[in-house]
Amino acid sequence: MTSADPAAAKPAPKDPWELPDVSGLTVGVLGGTGDQGRGLAYRLARAGQRVIIGSRSTERAETAAAELGHGVEGAENEECARRSDIVIVAVPWDGHAKTLEALRDVLVGKLVVDCVNPLGFDKKGAYALKPEEGSAAEQAAALLPESRVTAAFHHLSAVLLQDPEVEEIETDVMCLGEVRADVEQVQALAQRIPGMRGVFAGRLRNAHQVESLVANLISVNRRYKAHAGVRLTDI
Amino acid sequence: MTSADPAAAKPAPKDPWELPDVSGLTVGVLGGTGDQGRGLAYRLARAGQRVIIGSRSTERAETAAAELGHGVEGAENEECARRSDIVIVAVPWDGHAKTLEALRDVLVGKLVVDCVNPLGFDKKGAYALKPEEGSAAEQAAALLPESRVTAAFHHLSAVLLQDPEVEEIETDVMCLGEVRADVEQVQALAQRIPGMRGVFAGRLRNAHQVESLVANLISVNRRYKAHAGVRLTDI
Repeated sequence: MTSADPAAAKPAPKDPWELPDVSGLTVGVLGGTGDQGRGLAYRLARAGQRVIIGSRSTERAETAAAELGHGVEGAENEECARRSDIVIVAVPWDGHAKTLEALRDVLVGKLVVDCVNPLGFDKKGAYALKPEEGSAAEQAAALLPESRVTAAFHHLSAVLLQDPEVEEIETDVMCLGEVRADVEQVQALAQRIPGMRGVFAGRLRNAHQVESLVANLISVNRRYKAHAGVRLTDI
Repeated sequence: MTSADPAAAKPAPKDPWELPDVSGLTVGVLGGTGDQGRGLAYRLARAGQRVIIGSRSTERAETAAAELGHGVEGAENEECARRSDIVIVAVPWDGHAKTLEALRDVLVGKLVVDCVNPLGFDKKGAYALKPEEGSAAEQAAALLPESRVTAAFHHLSAVLLQDPEVEEIETDVMCLGEVRADVEQVQALAQRIPGMRGVFAGRLRNAHQVESLVANLISVNRRYKAHAGVRLTDI
């Protein structure tokens, strides 16, 4: 290294574990009546976050919200998105593009967290589907050019998330995105849930493998009768 | 469940942690002079496994073997493959197809463990390459129809593997393949290395995301100044 090294002029790197306070933000969960969405909504609300679950049907959203307790509210997807600062996309892959297209305007400027895993299933189990855009997250980014799209929460067991007996879920949440400040909000949100760490794990162009790793976790679960998650070691 | 349920007639499921003894098998490491190959060879030999590293050049293989110690031998790739029971493929992705094609005959009947990660690099870091066959492992399976092709050892840090000061490497090795008995040998081999577990993680059609997850680990390493690995939780 010489004195002309451009790195020498840079400030000391920021502590990657120094994350913003997101406890005052409202989190919407689109597809919040599905297993993954319900589970995430439940965990976040139980941790003290204000949560609104969204559904195509206001009635279904309100029913699910009432079941979850912890102050969770229910609303039709558009209202859920409008009232939320952070919007988690937990809809089935089949409805992913259609749901997001319809919400493009109301999602302008919002922090969007895609947690959809495009998978197919046949007699041999689960396998990855490859969206034309590369991944569900990249599809979201293409459909929502004026939103702040990130990806996270792919590897959580809906069973553990929803089990009120489970106090902590020992797992890491791989958080991906293009803008560090956005991803750090998602990391901070993940860390609100006891046992979880929110870990930066790359740009959206590397979301496909994170999404489709769920196919492997399904194989693990079957073989080991488990609800497998992922921890990253050495960090 | 009714008495007609076919599962009722099945024997109790086998304990997934009951793995074969592979301590007497010879392991060849193709590309054993590269960082990943050297590291794996070193760890396995240090654990008491008989290891031969292979290279295109006998001389380079022998030099690297002498440096590694622990009884590691060096040989030209073909001899390495011929003398080994289990053959780990740790060559650069660029040379993957060519190397395997040339060894097709000598690899007939052998247990082949592909640990190659097809990645590209640009200014934004690492990204996944998608082999025509789906993954490096599936390319190996296509090129070696009479070998027993599996995939494993993708997420190990070559730095940690090669560091003699490191006694244990706390990580899981995701092991993939079509034939349970073959994959179990690979799992057992992984477990020879202190700190590692060999975990069944699906069929070869789900190898791509395991291979390309290394792009994410590279992002993690950069952000956290770490040598990140993967642990699976709840198993």
